[in-house]
Amino acid sequence: MHDLAGADPDLRFSPYCWRIRFALAHKGLPVETIPWRFTDREAIAFSGQARVPVIRDGETVVFDSWSIAEHLEDHYPAPTLFGGAIGRAHARFINAWADSVLLGGIARFIVRDLLDIIDPKDVAYFRASRESRFGTTLEAVQAGREERLEAFRESLLPLRLVLRRQDWFGGATPSYADHIVAGTLMWPHCASRFALLAPDDIVATWFGRVCDLYGGLGRLAKTA
Amino acid sequence: MHDLAGADPDLRFSPYCWRIRFALAHKGLPVETIPWRFTDREAIAFSGQARVPVIRDGETVVFDSWSIAEHLEDHYPAPTLFGGAIGRAHARFINAWADSVLLGGIARFIVRDLLDIIDPKDVAYFRASRESRFGTTLEAVQAGREERLEAFRESLLPLRLVLRRQDWFGGATPSYADHIVAGTLMWPHCASRFALLAPDDIVATWFGRVCDLYGGLGRLAKTA
Repeated sequence: MHDLAGADPDLRFSPYCWRIRFALAHKGLPVETIPWRFTDREAIAFSGQARVPVIRDGETVVFDSWSIAEHLEDHYPAPTLFGGAIGRAHARFINAWADSVLLGGIARFIVRDLLDIIDPKDVAYFRASRESRFGTTLEAVQAGREERLEAFRESLLPLRLVLRRQDWFGGATPSYADHIVAGTLMWPHCASRFALLAPDDIVATWFGRVCDLYGGLGRLAKTA
Repeated sequence: MHDLAGADPDLRFSPYCWRIRFALAHKGLPVETIPWRFTDREAIAFSGQARVPVIRDGETVVFDSWSIAEHLEDHYPAPTLFGGAIGRAHARFINAWADSVLLGGIARFIVRDLLDIIDPKDVAYFRASRESRFGTTLEAVQAGREERLEAFRESLLPLRLVLRRQDWFGGATPSYADHIVAGTLMWPHCASRFALLAPDDIVATWFGRVCDLYGGLGRLAKTA
C-alpha cells in the first residue's frame, strides 16, 4: 500500500490512508506500507491515477479508500466491515459526511500546519494546489482558528448523539464507519499540534478507544 | 398511532411521524392514525410522555421514532428496515444527522409558516415554546430565507454524494435511512409552500421516488 508520508517517512497523515490502515488491521491482513509524497506521480502511475491510498493485492490494484474497503469486504469477508448490503449502503452516507463536512471543516484548522511536516519537494505543489482550491493563501484559511473552534466542535454533534447511545459507530463492535471517522481524525492528530477535540468530549474518548484497537495502531502512530 | 395534525385533521406534517408512517408501510403493517395536536397532552398521557409519534401495538405502547423503528424491526423482521445490527448502528448516525443538521436547518425556513397551519388552540403554546428555544421571534428566525437558501442547499451535499452512487440510502432498495431523510423532508413539503429543494437536485428526484413508494403514500399526502 502506498501511504502518504511527510518529510519524515514515518509520519503518516492521510485521512484516506488511515481509513484503510484501520480496515486492513480489522481484517487481520498484513500490509507493507510504502511512503509516498504528493509529487511521486510515477510511483503510482501503475494505478492509472495520482492519489493514495493505492493497494496491490496479489495481481489486483485498487485505489480510492471506499473502493479499497469494498474490495477488502468482498475478498476477505470476516470479520465484516459493513455487516451486509444495507450496512454498506448506510456507511456510504457516513463516508460522504466525513469527506465533505468533517474533512472540509478540519482543513480550515490545519492546512497551513501541513507545510511544516510535508516533504520539501512537495511544498510548492501543495501550496499552489490548495490555495487554488481555497481561493486564498493557506495562512488566510487557517487564520483565526481559535475563534472558530467552538463552532467546529458543535458541528460534531451528530457523532456525539450516536456515541451517547452506542460504543462504536458499528454498534457493539467497530465497523468501517469507525474507521472512516477515526481515520479522518488521524489527519489532524498526526499532522498538527492544534487540539481540535476537547479532551472531555465523548468523541475524544471514543477516538482514544479506536487508537487502542489493533495492537495500538493509532496510539503508536508518529505525530508532528 | 397518534400523528401530529394541523387545524385540518388531514394535514400531517411531523417529520418524526412521517418516518414511522413510511416504516409501517415498508413492513406492510396497517395503521390507524389518530390526529393529535401539540396541546393534546392527555390524549397520549398513557405513554408517559408528551410527544408523538406514539404507537399502540396490541398491548405494547412505544414512543420516539427511533424506538418505534427498532420495535417494528424486532417484532416484524421482514422486509428489513436495517439489514442487521451493523446496518442499524449505521442508521443511527443518519438519524442523528437528520435530527440535528437537517431538521435544524429546515426549521429556519419554515417555522413561522407552521403558525398558519397548526390548530388555533396550539398557536400560543407553539409560539412560546419555539421562541424560547430560538431566543427570538418566529418571524425573525425565518427572515431572509431566500438569501440563506443556497447555503442550505449546499448543506445537503452528503445526501447528494450518496445518491450519485446508489438509488436509495439503503442501497439497491429503500431502508429506514430513506424513511429518516424523506420523513424529515415531508415536514417542509406538507407544512409550507416554500420550495426548499431545487427541482433539478438529485435529492428532489430521489424524494419524488420515495413519495411514490407504498401506493404513493407521500405523493397523496395533503399539503399546505
